[in-house]
Amino acid sequence: MGKTPPEVDTYIKDHRSEFEEDLFELLRIPSISVDSQYKEETARAADWVATQFDRLNFHTERIETSGHPIIFSQSPMVEGAPTALVYGHYDVQPPDPLDEWISPPFEPNVREGNVYARGATDDKGQMLTHFKSAEAWMKTKGSLPLNLIYLIEGEEEVGSENLEHFIEKFQDKLACDCVVISDTSQFAPGQPAITYGLRGIAYYELRLSGPSQDLHSGTFGGAVTNPANALATMLARLIDEEGKIQIPGFYDDVVPLTTREREGFQSLSFSEQRFQDLVGVKNTSGESGFSTLERRSARPSYDVNGIWGGYQGEGAKTVLPAKAGAKFSFRLVPNQDPQTISQQLQDFLQEHLPPGITMQLVDLHGAPGVVVPLESPYIEASARAIEHGFGTSPVYIREGGSIPIVSTFASRLGVDSLLLGWGQNDDNTHSPNEKFNLADYHRGIRTSACLWSELATIQ
Amino acid sequence: MGKTPPEVDTYIKDHRSEFEEDLFELLRIPSISVDSQYKEETARAADWVATQFDRLNFHTERIETSGHPIIFSQSPMVEGAPTALVYGHYDVQPPDPLDEWISPPFEPNVREGNVYARGATDDKGQMLTHFKSAEAWMKTKGSLPLNLIYLIEGEEEVGSENLEHFIEKFQDKLACDCVVISDTSQFAPGQPAITYGLRGIAYYELRLSGPSQDLHSGTFGGAVTNPANALATMLARLIDEEGKIQIPGFYDDVVPLTTREREGFQSLSFSEQRFQDLVGVKNTSGESGFSTLERRSARPSYDVNGIWGGYQGEGAKTVLPAKAGAKFSFRLVPNQDPQTISQQLQDFLQEHLPPGITMQLVDLHGAPGVVVPLESPYIEASARAIEHGFGTSPVYIREGGSIPIVSTFASRLGVDSLLLGWGQNDDNTHSPNEKFNLADYHRGIRTSACLWSELATIQ
Repeated sequence: MGKTPPEVDTYIKDHRSEFEEDLFELLRIPSISVDSQYKEETARAADWVATQFDRLNFHTERIETSGHPIIFSQSPMVEGAPTALVYGHYDVQPPDPLDEWISPPFEPNVREGNVYARGATDDKGQMLTHFKSAEAWMKTKGSLPLNLIYLIEGEEEVGSENLEHFIEKFQDKLACDCVVISDTSQFAPGQPAITYGLRGIAYYELRLSGPSQDLHSGTFGGAVTNPANALATMLARLIDEEGKIQIPGFYDDVVPLTTREREGFQSLSFSEQRFQDLVGVKNTSGESGFSTLERRSARPSYDVNGIWGGYQGEGAKTVLPAKAGAKFSFRLVPNQDPQTISQQLQDFLQEHLPPGITMQLVDLHGAPGVVVPLESPYIEASARAIEHGFGTSPVYIREGGSIPIVSTFASRLGVDSLLLGWGQNDDNTHSPNEKFNLADYHRGIRTSACLWSELATIQ
Repeated sequence: MGKTPPEVDTYIKDHRSEFEEDLFELLRIPSISVDSQYKEETARAADWVATQFDRLNFHTERIETSGHPIIFSQSPMVEGAPTALVYGHYDVQPPDPLDEWISPPFEPNVREGNVYARGATDDKGQMLTHFKSAEAWMKTKGSLPLNLIYLIEGEEEVGSENLEHFIEKFQDKLACDCVVISDTSQFAPGQPAITYGLRGIAYYELRLSGPSQDLHSGTFGGAVTNPANALATMLARLIDEEGKIQIPGFYDDVVPLTTREREGFQSLSFSEQRFQDLVGVKNTSGESGFSTLERRSARPSYDVNGIWGGYQGEGAKTVLPAKAGAKFSFRLVPNQDPQTISQQLQDFLQEHLPPGITMQLVDLHGAPGVVVPLESPYIEASARAIEHGFGTSPVYIREGGSIPIVSTFASRLGVDSLLLGWGQNDDNTHSPNEKFNLADYHRGIRTSACLWSELATIQ
């Protein structure tokens, strides 16, 4: 087992306020990757990341892409030691709806031990723990006990397309023994977790067109197919009352949950009531025959992410709209293939298209789900590092979200990803008032510093 | 049968150019009721209308309202004769987009027998036919064969709210045997029509709330009911594949189409292909067992007029939205009651509300449909007058839209409205290059003058 040298831990303890200041500095940059208005700000976040590595004298490259830059950085070579690749992203989701934020999204504000800002937990705060742990080693020991490659992108929130190309092209440059990613959550406050499974995703936009222009619903209603009616019907037909997705073949490749996994889910301390209070609902729903935890992390799901059409203003307008559309996505589990799903979906929607309507289905992005074997020595090393950093051993969970890049690391580099989450489930990721707990930030740094020694011992 | 005295018809023939000059004078006044910048011009149109009646020595009142004035005028009392109320409006729609007009909207321009100007057909030109017919009687015979009440408003294009209050308050003053309105269209050029039915409306906004804020669709999708999914499902359940609305009791009060009515629809010259080309669709759809004409004018319908929720921007956002909503409406036919429908709808939606979702149903407005029995002596009188004025007998049609004031006349004054349209379907009502055929203007005056004799004979 590899122990953290005491001076590394001391450095981390002594630099808490500097580490926080650095995080706040990054959080002030509105690196909203989806919005072209923020292109320069997003590039500024890339530069900020590069500067962090320059200060440690790492070999750092800023790779330009057709979108936002990728920052690649390598620690000084340690002969004979293993190599870990740290992945993170400096881009963030748009902050809308703005008026629901208690403090402005790009002015970090600390309340009750949490820093509130867009990107606080996803992924700026979590990513930074692995920068600061390296700093602690370099500033105290002058070197790291292993080789680190940092691969930090600015397009995670828009599908990581350029990073995918980069990994495909530079597999040798990125050769490593494992990938380390902190972009997930703990199981609960005080209960860190290793996420051994992620859902995949298949995300679409459906655009329906009917008449060549908006019509008067009095003069034409009842005779001309209304694209907004058609949209509601088509979206509704995708799922039944039991929460089963109705696309033929959709479940064909789903790997069923094992008895050990279902027992694992059951043993986790989870209160349905507390969950409902957390999200603010009186009841939950979902696929029949599965628990809430299983439904949200280990079973496929279907969500309408956006819907629009016709008149959205005040009062009544008697319009039969010419167009309507929606964005919707499926969460996938191993071994569902997004491309197969796309084809099945296209066929299903075409079959359910009402007369007088034309459709366009845009495939916005897709990624398969992944599961990492619990027996991996890297998982065991991570567990020991967490015990050092958090003072308690982790639980093993599956996460409902997708990190498509994890599938790419598996397929292109042939390595497993260690998903070590320092966030909390109520961090408001992608929502107003996103936050990150500062004590967890420091625990994350301490864990990361220990992880470098632990991974160094694996042959 | 009441014949028009020959001198009345002669007067009409001899005063064609004066009648046209008067129409052009009114068309030059930009009485745009929705735009407060045109408040004085709109008032000037009211005065112009009042002056028309003053010249005939009618008893005329200019009623001030919180919006634009109402002109009320009564012809000299004819003891023992019936009373007809003529409704019209002197206000017009805004002329935008201005650059699409071939001649300026408030400078009437005659091309190929049509006068082009905003308000030419809606409703200045059509309304004026009933002023000029009275003038012809008064100037030749010195009196009318019946009692006329003119009720001319300046807020039809903005909802007629003040007129509704006025009618409610002065029901005695407005007591009459029938209402005459020319604000609709002929069936086709050379084919005048009596519109004997209008659909009603019941218009709603449905607001659904789920979680207390937007959630990440990866972390929560599958376990938390998504309001946008729920909205699609609830809207879809309102209608089945046969186009039948699924609310229990919805059709209970629907008066079935009579054989005479269905034969009437079938006998109308209507090309399904031309209709599809007009609206720009390859197919139509609707309630099974009914034709396109029946579906759009004589059967209830259901249209989603607007829908919204979640992310509507570019690209993909993996959000499970906290809220979603829609505006939708039913077109109603006699004897459906909007209030009954509202209660049935509320019950239906409540029953289909998924767990974890709360709903608010806002009743935006409602009006019942109306049908004037084809056997009504007033309809028969109108048909004879049209035959005299146009030289051809009318067809009987139902209109899919609503004219809320017609429901008000029915409910408050207990009388039927005769909807005698002199316009054409391609008159560009509410669009650039609005027009009115001058030959139809004169035919309308001749018909109106004859209508006064015809109505006078009804006991």
